[in-house]
Amino acid sequence: MAGPVIILVEPQLGENIGMAARAMLNCGLTELRLVRPRDGWPSDPARASAAGADAVIDGTGLYDTTAEAIADISAVYATTVRSRDMTKRVVTPRRAAAEMRPLEAAGARTGLLFGKEAVGLNNDDIALADAVLTVPVNAEFPSLNLAQAVFAAGYEWFLAANETPAEHLMISKETRPADKRELIALFKHLERELDAVGFMHVEEKRPTMIRNLRNILQRASLTKQEVRTLRGVITSLTRKSRY
Amino acid sequence: MAGPVIILVEPQLGENIGMAARAMLNCGLTELRLVRPRDGWPSDPARASAAGADAVIDGTGLYDTTAEAIADISAVYATTVRSRDMTKRVVTPRRAAAEMRPLEAAGARTGLLFGKEAVGLNNDDIALADAVLTVPVNAEFPSLNLAQAVFAAGYEWFLAANETPAEHLMISKETRPADKRELIALFKHLERELDAVGFMHVEEKRPTMIRNLRNILQRASLTKQEVRTLRGVITSLTRKSRY
Repeated sequence: MAGPVIILVEPQLGENIGMAARAMLNCGLTELRLVRPRDGWPSDPARASAAGADAVIDGTGLYDTTAEAIADISAVYATTVRSRDMTKRVVTPRRAAAEMRPLEAAGARTGLLFGKEAVGLNNDDIALADAVLTVPVNAEFPSLNLAQAVFAAGYEWFLAANETPAEHLMISKETRPADKRELIALFKHLERELDAVGFMHVEEKRPTMIRNLRNILQRASLTKQEVRTLRGVITSLTRKSRY
Repeated sequence: MAGPVIILVEPQLGENIGMAARAMLNCGLTELRLVRPRDGWPSDPARASAAGADAVIDGTGLYDTTAEAIADISAVYATTVRSRDMTKRVVTPRRAAAEMRPLEAAGARTGLLFGKEAVGLNNDDIALADAVLTVPVNAEFPSLNLAQAVFAAGYEWFLAANETPAEHLMISKETRPADKRELIALFKHLERELDAVGFMHVEEKRPTMIRNLRNILQRASLTKQEVRTLRGVITSLTRKSRY
């Protein structure tokens, strides 16, 4: 599935086009179309700021009108910051992504329309779109950099089919999470040495202290290698204290 | 609630710092800290590319070390693209936002650490963080522009407490959605005129044709004003056909 076509209407700075291309490829999107770019096309600043997204830059299409740029697209979302005096459905990038996924899967093309920097799309271009897309941001400072707006929409498109777990453990090579046998051996090693130096001499506080120390070490989610390191630390500290 | 502090470690281009400041304020974040910015501080290019986020630029703190920049922060997320040979929890921006919200509500400061352009954070800085934050993007082109990475994290922070509906209807002033009385009058007006010109002369197809036309008009979610416009269109077209 190709994903939405990104259409920039009258973009002004080549640099912004390049940053938009980079943001697109970050999100797995590759088809960029430009309607009357102010400084012409191709553009050296665009290529430079694309930072390696050459496939997007090389495949960029050039159009005279918005109507031509969206001719083969079935569902078009017009990105705007402010509300206009017209009647149209307004969606978040997340909702747009949820709508575009099944359309693309069914073989229809989808597209996202972005207006020129600072000004945005004109109302005639918006009237060509199925819906308006507005990125939810700080209402007191809502103007997004062009590439940022492209990224917000692309990121939600990407996330809608991405299975990255919300959280996982990055783990050093050549080790694994410690098992409880290793962890309990560490607890006992520490507690034995603390008993030896009289750290837990108040007998009625001893069970609480032991639980606290065990909870601290549990919370660290140690690896097998880290348990070995900590046991080395204990051995080393107790050896030193005996000199 | 202030939201996470954004800490840029050894940022190179003032322009990127400015774009990061703009992205921050777009997401309602205002506290920026810099550790050893290459080109010094304050920075004219930073202020220019902040595009009005002057409050962020004016309040930016300058630090010699990452440790000093995060001294008053309880939960620090280190943003990285690639996996490192170390053991640490890795979270998405969305999960990080869900974790930071209750911490900030409880009065603890949180922070997001970003490394220098192209290179990222070094492993010693990552070792000072509670967890790693990685923005889920295209694995074949994962390197985000610095401001884009700041935006991804800030956007999720903003969304985590934002109540923008996934979809709503932007509606032209001085009108309202049409009620069914108005809509049915439009249906009947159209059907009467179509009967008059013999458009539905095959009697057994008439009910299906009527339902199809009614479904098309229903799907348009017309306003009261638009119903009036369409009735004017019908009247006008039928008048013309009689000349």
